[in-house]
Formats: sequence, structure tokens, C-alpha cells
Amino acid sequence: MCSNRNLQRISLEFFFEVLKLPHMQVIRSPQEMQALALSWRARGDMIVLVPTMGYFHRGHVSLMEYGRGIGRRLVVSLFVNPTQFAPNEDLDCYPRNFDQDCKLAQEAGVDVIFAPEADQLYPPDFQTYVTVEQVTRGLCGASRPIHFRGVATIVLKLFNLVQPQAAIFGEKDYQQLITLKRMALDLNLPVEIIGRPLVREPDGLAMSSRNVYLSPGERRSALNLSRALFKACELTAKGETSRDRLFAALKPILTCDPQINLDYLNLVDPQTLKEIDTIRGQARLAIAAWVGRTRLIDNILLEVP
Amino acid sequence: MCSNRNLQRISLEFFFEVLKLPHMQVIRSPQEMQALALSWRARGDMIVLVPTMGYFHRGHVSLMEYGRGIGRRLVVSLFVNPTQFAPNEDLDCYPRNFDQDCKLAQEAGVDVIFAPEADQLYPPDFQTYVTVEQVTRGLCGASRPIHFRGVATIVLKLFNLVQPQAAIFGEKDYQQLITLKRMALDLNLPVEIIGRPLVREPDGLAMSSRNVYLSPGERRSALNLSRALFKACELTAKGETSRDRLFAALKPILTCDPQINLDYLNLVDPQTLKEIDTIRGQARLAIAAWVGRTRLIDNILLEVP
Repeated sequence: MCSNRNLQRISLEFFFEVLKLPHMQVIRSPQEMQALALSWRARGDMIVLVPTMGYFHRGHVSLMEYGRGIGRRLVVSLFVNPTQFAPNEDLDCYPRNFDQDCKLAQEAGVDVIFAPEADQLYPPDFQTYVTVEQVTRGLCGASRPIHFRGVATIVLKLFNLVQPQAAIFGEKDYQQLITLKRMALDLNLPVEIIGRPLVREPDGLAMSSRNVYLSPGERRSALNLSRALFKACELTAKGETSRDRLFAALKPILTCDPQINLDYLNLVDPQTLKEIDTIRGQARLAIAAWVGRTRLIDNILLEVP
Repeated sequence: MCSNRNLQRISLEFFFEVLKLPHMQVIRSPQEMQALALSWRARGDMIVLVPTMGYFHRGHVSLMEYGRGIGRRLVVSLFVNPTQFAPNEDLDCYPRNFDQDCKLAQEAGVDVIFAPEADQLYPPDFQTYVTVEQVTRGLCGASRPIHFRGVATIVLKLFNLVQPQAAIFGEKDYQQLITLKRMALDLNLPVEIIGRPLVREPDGLAMSSRNVYLSPGERRSALNLSRALFKACELTAKGETSRDRLFAALKPILTCDPQINLDYLNLVDPQTLKEIDTIRGQARLAIAAWVGRTRLIDNILLEVP
């Protein structure tokens, strides 16, 4: 048993050597993560953070690859954050595959996976929260009232633990991205918040860890979300600027399928997230819908020529 | 005119030279402050921050002197923070004397006075706040509901701008100190929050910038606050542990003077600030009262032998 383990260790070392992969460190302790990050900072190293909830798909990997290109130290946090889930949501069944995540992160050139335990980040008397007000009111904030408070709070905690100069988020969670940009600006965080394009499956479905919940039939129904967004894109490219006319054109796509239960379809200003009725230049079209028991979101940039 | 100015500059240089005082820098721009702080951090310098609202008295100076002893770079922020004042409070008439403050800070060995303008820290779309929940509910939080949200938010902003490893606060604002310690712990801030003893006038009155509001008669009435606290200290030192008996003994001191309008007198746990009815080991006795139109606070550590 003991010699077997040694052999295993040797072959792992050999594997890293042959592939010229650097060793990736897995850190569980917040104190250890912060001490390492502060030592990097005191040396003047540029640190990049990609905050995630794990169960990586190509969207996550694209963020890591982008981060690898801009920083000296690349940290990926992997934490399914309880404070952003309401009691009726999917915290307990959120998909996890830590070994596969480590493999993908290693391949993307990540230096550290920071994967703390919930009770380490939220001690019993925890009582401090960050709220970003206006931009979290509409869209997902309307049906998930505590969600963005949880997101802002955990991301600020991660920033303090990892000390990044840049943090990378996918545009799939567009309201989250805008919320965090606003937080960084308002709290004078010395962190650049970088948004990167969402990644789609070949048939158009926005990649999401939650897609694993979908049955084959629901998977087909879910395609109508991206279909509606693409249709809107096509119409605005031809000069359509009116929300009412756009929505009228999208309605058949979203109502034809009884498996789809729309939460919202909103046309908003890309920075303030305020609803608009006419597109001047750019707008974001955002959608959220239940497909069976799975809540999916998607969004797209609309540009009038 | 021009030669006069040059002469002025030369004599100022000469003054610094003779007294061996280092040059103190006054910084108004948040961006400039943060850039300087980040350059210090990248060199590994230890930065200490003393956040203040200015109009310095010996209490402030004692914090600066303590900070001078522990850090390589000592920054004092001077900012009368609008978000911690309610509309009916004394934001507009809060006492100010910038020249005198600079002189005192210079003498205490401060490297930088950071004195930003309100519109630089709170741009028009500002919408992000930090709330610390349980510890801000009682004491001053009960009569000043938005106060500690404003305090926590500005202090976090200052931490991000000044990048301190330690920040020093007076125990005069005891609930503020506990709130900020809780915030630092909950948000994983790499900042040590240091509380320092409050400083009293020779006759016992707790030093406060707001004491300047008091008329000579009110100044005499205000002495009853510290008198009550000292009395409690004396009784607990003799073994009194009961809140009810303590409060019965203090009542005559606080009710004999019609100029005093008590807001609260609370015996609390020194960490959680929860009210207690029996002292086991240590407790904080905290008081707030209106003396004429001025609201004063004071507190004292009670220890049962």
C-alpha cells in the first residue's frame, strides 16, 4: 500500500514533467490562501482571479485561458456559495465534480484552485453583507431577492482573500457582471472586473452547469431561449429599434412550447440595466425561464446599425 | 508677489529643516491616494490608517502617535462622511479646522493626510452599501438607523484606497469599533482593527469634536455622564454585578440635571453588544444623552474582581 502510493506520486511527478505542466496547488484554508496572496502582492506579482461554483464547462475554461494570458498568478475559486441561494433553490443538488474540475483547471494553466468549506467562510456569527441597490432590482433580482447580496458579499470576500488586480466573469450572468462592476467602482476596489463572452453549445444553448439537470426533451425545449435571442439580433441588425415590435416577433418562439415557463424577457440599458422601450445604439436583451424544474438564463447584445 | 511666494516656500523648507520634521503630503484625489498606497504595498511597506472626521483633539493625536509607532507609512484620512448622518443631524455644522488639523498631524509624524471631497467618493449613481447586522441594532444604532451602514461603507472604501495592514480607532465610539472588527472578520479583510483607549479632559469629560457645541452651562451638565460611568466602575470594583442595582445607583446622577436628556444607558457584552443583566468578568457600560442640542456618547469597561 505504502509503496503503491509512492509509485503513484512518482508517476504523477513524471506526468507533470513530461507534459511540462506546472504543479497546480489546491488550497482549502482561507488563511493559507490569503497569506500566499499577500506574499505575491508584496513581491509585486499581478494576480488574476476567476470565481466559479465549479462543474466546469467550456465557458469556465475560456475565462481561465483568458486569465492565464494576463496575469502572473492565476487563481480559480471553486465555491458553491450558500448565501446566494434561497431556501427553495438548488443549493443542495448543485452539480459537483471536483476531480474533473481540477483536471480542466490544470490543463488551463491555473496556479491555485481555492476551494474553501462553507463553515470557514461563514462562521456562526457572520452578519456582514454588501448590497448593490439599483442594478439588482430588476431581471433576476426581482425573482431572487437575496441572490445578488450573496453574490456581492462572497465576491468581496474572495477579493480580500485572493488579492487580485483583475477578476474575470462570464457575460452569461450579465446582471451579476454589472453588479460586480458597480460594487468595484463604488467601494474603490483596486480590481478590474473583466466580462468575457458567453460560450454556447454548437446548437446555440448557452453553456451552464445547470444544463445537466435537463432531460433530453427539456434540452430541446431550452433551445427556444437562444433562438428567440438570435431572432432579436437579426431584427435589430435590420434596423428594428422598438421593444414592442421585437417582443411581438419573439412571442411565438417562447410560447409555442408548454415546457417553457417564462420568468422574464427584458430589454435593458447595458450599463444601468434600466428597462428601455427603444434601442439607441446598444441594448441587452435578457431572458430567464423555467424549463421543467430548471431555471435557465441567457442574454445577448443588440446593436442597431 | 512672485518673489514673496518663493520666499514663503523657502522659509517653509527652512522650517521643516530646522525642526527635522518630515514633509507631510496632503492628498485630495482618491485615485492618487490609491496609486501611492498600491506602490507602497508592492514594495512591502506596512501602512497604518487612522480614519477621522477632523477637528482633532488629544484623542485623535493619541491614535496618530500609536500608529506612528507601528507602521512604516502613516495615513490619516479626514472626511466628514455624509452617508453616516441622517438628514436631521449635524452634517452641515460639524466643526472643521483644516489648517490646525494639518499642524497637529504634522507634529504627530503623519506621512499623508487624505482629505477627499464628498463628490469624489460618492458619484451620482453610487448604490453600494455594507451592513453589519446584529451588533448595530442596539445602542446608537437604535436611534441612528443608517449611521453604521454609512460608517462601515466609508471605512471599507478608505481601506481599499489606503490599503492599510492596520487601522486605529478610538474606544470612545465603542459600537463603531466592534462593528468594524466584525466587518473585518466577516469580509476577510487583511486589516487589523486596533481600538485605543478614549482620552478624557482633566475633569473627566470624554474628548469629542462635538464638545465645541456646548455652552459653559451645558459643559458642566455634560460632566454627569462620565460621573455616572465612574460611579459604576467604583461599584463593580467593589463586587456589584447586578445591572438593576447599578442603574438604581446611577439614576440620581443622570436625572438630577434637567439639561440632560438620556437616549440610552446600556450594560452590554463587550464583544456581541448584547444587553446583559449580570456582569460576569467584563462588561461595557455605554451611555448616550442629549445635553441641550448636542448628542454626547461615552462608555467604560466594567470589571468585576
